[in-house]
Amino acid sequence: MSPIRYGMIGGGQGAFIGGVHRTAAAIAGNWQLAAGALSSTPERARESGAQIGLDPARTYGSWHEMLEREAALPADLRIEAVSIVTPNHMHAPPAIAALEAGFDVIIDKPLADTPDHAQAIADAVSRTGRRIAVTHTYTGYPLVKQARRLVASGRFGKVRRVAVKYTQDWLSRAADLVDNKQAAWRVDPAQSGEAGAFGDIGTHAANLAEFITGERITAICAELTMLPGRLIDDDGAALFRLSGGGKGTLTASQVLVGDINDLAIDVYCDEAGLHWRQEEPNTLRIGYRDKPTEIWHAGANRPYLAGDVLAIQRTPGGHPEGYLEAFANIYRAFGEQLRGAPSQHEDEPGFATIDDALRGMAFLRASLESSRRGAVWVDL
Amino acid sequence: MSPIRYGMIGGGQGAFIGGVHRTAAAIAGNWQLAAGALSSTPERARESGAQIGLDPARTYGSWHEMLEREAALPADLRIEAVSIVTPNHMHAPPAIAALEAGFDVIIDKPLADTPDHAQAIADAVSRTGRRIAVTHTYTGYPLVKQARRLVASGRFGKVRRVAVKYTQDWLSRAADLVDNKQAAWRVDPAQSGEAGAFGDIGTHAANLAEFITGERITAICAELTMLPGRLIDDDGAALFRLSGGGKGTLTASQVLVGDINDLAIDVYCDEAGLHWRQEEPNTLRIGYRDKPTEIWHAGANRPYLAGDVLAIQRTPGGHPEGYLEAFANIYRAFGEQLRGAPSQHEDEPGFATIDDALRGMAFLRASLESSRRGAVWVDL
Amino acid sequence: MSPIRYGMIGGGQGAFIGGVHRTAAAIAGNWQLAAGALSSTPERARESGAQIGLDPARTYGSWHEMLEREAALPADLRIEAVSIVTPNHMHAPPAIAALEAGFDVIIDKPLADTPDHAQAIADAVSRTGRRIAVTHTYTGYPLVKQARRLVASGRFGKVRRVAVKYTQDWLSRAADLVDNKQAAWRVDPAQSGEAGAFGDIGTHAANLAEFITGERITAICAELTMLPGRLIDDDGAALFRLSGGGKGTLTASQVLVGDINDLAIDVYCDEAGLHWRQEEPNTLRIGYRDKPTEIWHAGANRPYLAGDVLAIQRTPGGHPEGYLEAFANIYRAFGEQLRGAPSQHEDEPGFATIDDALRGMAFLRASLESSRRGAVWVDL
Amino acid sequence: MSPIRYGMIGGGQGAFIGGVHRTAAAIAGNWQLAAGALSSTPERARESGAQIGLDPARTYGSWHEMLEREAALPADLRIEAVSIVTPNHMHAPPAIAALEAGFDVIIDKPLADTPDHAQAIADAVSRTGRRIAVTHTYTGYPLVKQARRLVASGRFGKVRRVAVKYTQDWLSRAADLVDNKQAAWRVDPAQSGEAGAFGDIGTHAANLAEFITGERITAICAELTMLPGRLIDDDGAALFRLSGGGKGTLTASQVLVGDINDLAIDVYCDEAGLHWRQEEPNTLRIGYRDKPTEIWHAGANRPYLAGDVLAIQRTPGGHPEGYLEAFANIYRAFGEQLRGAPSQHEDEPGFATIDDALRGMAFLRASLESSRRGAVWVDL
Repeated sequence: MSPIRYGMIGGGQGAFIGGVHRTAAAIAGNWQLAAGALSSTPERARESGAQIGLDPARTYGSWHEMLEREAALPADLRIEAVSIVTPNHMHAPPAIAALEAGFDVIIDKPLADTPDHAQAIADAVSRTGRRIAVTHTYTGYPLVKQARRLVASGRFGKVRRVAVKYTQDWLSRAADLVDNKQAAWRVDPAQSGEAGAFGDIGTHAANLAEFITGERITAICAELTMLPGRLIDDDGAALFRLSGGGKGTLTASQVLVGDINDLAIDVYCDEAGLHWRQEEPNTLRIGYRDKPTEIWHAGANRPYLAGDVLAIQRTPGGHPEGYLEAFANIYRAFGEQLRGAPSQHEDEPGFATIDDALRGMAFLRASLESSRRGAVWVDL
Repeated sequence: MSPIRYGMIGGGQGAFIGGVHRTAAAIAGNWQLAAGALSSTPERARESGAQIGLDPARTYGSWHEMLEREAALPADLRIEAVSIVTPNHMHAPPAIAALEAGFDVIIDKPLADTPDHAQAIADAVSRTGRRIAVTHTYTGYPLVKQARRLVASGRFGKVRRVAVKYTQDWLSRAADLVDNKQAAWRVDPAQSGEAGAFGDIGTHAANLAEFITGERITAICAELTMLPGRLIDDDGAALFRLSGGGKGTLTASQVLVGDINDLAIDVYCDEAGLHWRQEEPNTLRIGYRDKPTEIWHAGANRPYLAGDVLAIQRTPGGHPEGYLEAFANIYRAFGEQLRGAPSQHEDEPGFATIDDALRGMAFLRASLESSRRGAVWVDL
Repeated sequence: MSPIRYGMIGGGQGAFIGGVHRTAAAIAGNWQLAAGALSSTPERARESGAQIGLDPARTYGSWHEMLEREAALPADLRIEAVSIVTPNHMHAPPAIAALEAGFDVIIDKPLADTPDHAQAIADAVSRTGRRIAVTHTYTGYPLVKQARRLVASGRFGKVRRVAVKYTQDWLSRAADLVDNKQAAWRVDPAQSGEAGAFGDIGTHAANLAEFITGERITAICAELTMLPGRLIDDDGAALFRLSGGGKGTLTASQVLVGDINDLAIDVYCDEAGLHWRQEEPNTLRIGYRDKPTEIWHAGANRPYLAGDVLAIQRTPGGHPEGYLEAFANIYRAFGEQLRGAPSQHEDEPGFATIDDALRGMAFLRASLESSRRGAVWVDL
Repeated sequence: MSPIRYGMIGGGQGAFIGGVHRTAAAIAGNWQLAAGALSSTPERARESGAQIGLDPARTYGSWHEMLEREAALPADLRIEAVSIVTPNHMHAPPAIAALEAGFDVIIDKPLADTPDHAQAIADAVSRTGRRIAVTHTYTGYPLVKQARRLVASGRFGKVRRVAVKYTQDWLSRAADLVDNKQAAWRVDPAQSGEAGAFGDIGTHAANLAEFITGERITAICAELTMLPGRLIDDDGAALFRLSGGGKGTLTASQVLVGDINDLAIDVYCDEAGLHWRQEEPNTLRIGYRDKPTEIWHAGANRPYLAGDVLAIQRTPGGHPEGYLEAFANIYRAFGEQLRGAPSQHEDEPGFATIDDALRGMAFLRASLESSRRGAVWVDL
């Protein structure tokens, strides 16, 4: 199976997530970086391309240029897909343009800065028939998938309660807005959208809760706050209700000191409680009422894991895979779909779809509205 | 210092918490069990007394009898205090009677089954000038006290967010109501009061949050639920606001499978996050933004602990103390106060006061009202 | 069942282990401190007695006096047993005298400072027919007993390898010998015996390994060392062989910085590996080849624990018991044996016997000889 | 900097470590797989090449063919280095041939099946002036490097004691020899060399101990064993002595049930104890005598890590890197050295050298001799 030739939009010097996407694609093994428009100015785009060894002939000064010139190349040479890793407010324009130019799209989350822009992308997907994947990285972890399998199997009964948190501390100080490219756009509503922490990481938390439970968040009561001087939320918590009747709590914050990248979830069913934490992703803890607690271990040779969980791992037990491998699983699954290969995944495509992403936008909209109105319940 | 002679009300055969109180008092070393009215029928009271080796002459058939006959004994022989370990609806009558008979009172939490009954106890305390302690056990743990000291010192700045949970699974099944004396009264509103899990353990969680932060919960938005067929809450979660401006979440449940007795708290301040969990009580984790995470260890010889934290420990580091020792610390502190000994505790008496307990009742009332009205915000 | 009246020898002001024994006896509930000869000088013995509220009439100036005068009291008043908590070199004289005076004996480990003295105590036990228990505390932990049950059941096959360590850091500096009563006698061969860390805590480690495996250490190859200026070992490690054919490693040290009281053991059988650590004593980890790892929890209501493991616990799961409760289990079991009560323990008496203690002495002798000869193999 | 073009020897269908090397090289980013002789038969070599998308023109039927034909290509096209991932007994012939044909070599550990073969490779390195790296993967972990920096800094004083273990369970059953290509060659002395577990993973443990301490193992007393029916060791433990005067213990086993890939090390210095475990590689625990224990976190943005530790990480704190990234660090460092780039590493090259590998062979020889002679001390 030949690799998918792709062009990257964004991800130049000083960016973090672009490099992650490129390494993930390299680990996936079925993608090949063939072109790029890595920065918003032609000069920096060229420098960024040179820095990562991109072919100068296919290092473009803008994404408009890349889409136009790549589309003009012979079919067996031109890129087949674009990877969009720009700040949120620069998601919709290149995504729509790329779809309309006939390229498939893999795009960082959240899908867009506003619900309207997200819907516009979704419309373009429908209109063009192209395919899109949204990189909700954390569902790429093998044991997250295993947790989903266990809940879906019904052996543990119904979901009673979910507690999910995604908490960080990198914006914990007022000074964090100065001289930090990562921070700057994330706390600027013009670039990031109306939501801050809830948009950046709260959507990951909501996506993880829905992915593992296989249910939908139907209503939310959220209180968002921010440090003095900030314009969008950097901290918040919510109660929520699930489509199956269960309840939940969600916390998302970038100002909770000592929490580095603490995405963690507890899913309590009638007969077991499942616990997973991203910073130690290779164990899944399962508590029972009458039996010892179990620690399930990741690893391509653990006999108790589901078939598709085994299939996406590269190393045997005890050889830890991490964030980049989870990310690579997203790329791998989308690449396989683009090539028409049979999915390795049992009951989902292996990556977040446009529907998942639109639900993320609805989650955000409801959270912001709830908080604005004094933390009242809002339906999704 | 001679030990406090005390009589116990409740705590007979089949009860759990009575034995805990007695062992705690024995570890404390400054209490002596001298009398008892251990059950609600004279016959079972006598059997229960015999079982624990209580002097038959001072094993009474009812608490009325005990109070009356002990009050008639010479001052140097009669009990000085009573320990009340009955179900919640049987708290107020003996407590008020004991106070009025001139005895000091140590009483299990929550203070009473209804706010009115709690207030009646408080009024009796004011009226009689007797002293009372409420056994919110968990504040007796050394590292809980250390966490309070650290927050109070101001070195970590203000409290931003608290996440506290107290979750169990012993009522996770419908059948748990049958043939279980512990379960039966706790889920019967006539015996337990209007609140179930929020009354039994949610009050502990709220007390712990207020104790460590040194602040007050000022408003709450709570959603309480229960398994089909139950009359009072067995599960619920809440958002809350603190008097210092911080925010919080609280979960209390007795139906979350795999959580045995999982009281755990995260307190995030401007410059550090403190984390403590009752099931592993001898470590306190403190996260920082720019420094390695710290694990503080309990132990009477750890040089970094506060003086009054050192003073209440019995063993050096690495010789774990547990729940019974925490409970003993409550007894010890109250006993010292009764004897007029100088408090070992820096800025609090070492046990929950009547004011703490009334706040616990207000917390309960507000939680129930919030939930009844659809999980809206209610001030305390 | 009336409590055992006992007298304590040693355990006065400045001592650590005496207070532990007294609290343990109080928690056990079937012992009553009735007399004491707490220090080596009459004046300090009296002061120590007053400090803990001992009856002045039965606070003796020496253990000789206590044995003589108590023996003269009426049978229903005099002490029935003595608890010996003196430094090692002061174990044999009072133990032998007490046995010969008709008292049963509970004594701290190691049994004596030299093999000859230990044998003399054993001879006295045989000669007098009195009973003796040695407080190898750590076998009093419920999950240690559970580990023994699991190995004994044969369900995991034979023992392949044991790794046991008991490491501390309280003697890690040269200055630790100055002004520290605990340290002083432990590093003085005249008081402590020939062995330092191997005697003080290595014997606990060896005892734990033999207790859980149900086997005997048959040969050892040990290398013991000490900081410059010291006379007896403060650090050492050994390879050993077990009677069932398995192998082991043992480390005992009081100079390993950061290890507070780190007794930990791994027992690998054909089909499972069991892991327990004293500083977090309420979980037992069991690893399997083809199944998730299990965490077994302590608690008087955990349905998967053995009957006698349940019987010795005071609190339900999630209410941690600790070191003092483990110690109390030793006292309780010995007290029950003295009263002729049926043993709560399935295949051992619930405390270390004279045979266990003599094996501990043999372990020490062999370790010291091995090290002296350059770390060669020595049979036990 | 253009990538190093390399050819792989071994690593075809059914092999594990070959795929790991290729992914590691892809993550490193400065290597490009250009040729391969992946299996020992031409047909399987071709199939294996096709499977991973290798250019058919440069998929060779044997390593002899690859070396000969690549050497004949133009300098800017031919491979520059070979990666050798064959079983141990097939290390020396291709390594020596490659060095003599002018290629640099990166080779899996242990260097060879016998000391003589290892020396022959070392001689070839000297003779040809080519460069060689041995993939002792675990020293590629960032926090292992950090531990080395901390010990080297002297701030913790001298090394007192090391405890290192590398234990697995994948050969725990007799049946594990059947139908398992991985197992088959590792337990066959003709393919693996004289040593089993001590060769396969004990050498990793010894290398890790020497790497972190910066010292040499000078003498060892080892007892190796094996399950009935096996020809070489599958389990063993040793006492050892370090060049700086400290002591150590080492355990290596492939039959300890429940230990998946449990490489773990404790390094105790005068003033701190450092603890690292490969299965959770992103935390380094440091214990002190008088301060709280510290948990150091991995991450490219943790301000307390050393500069070269930061430089080799790809993701910020809380985004876990794992085994493949550690392996990639070895490739990256060797690739940089081949290109003459300034080393990112402070006091070592970033990979194991020929000297490290020869010491590993000496460790093995001494361990085997010690065990053969009854577990006596043997100097290295």
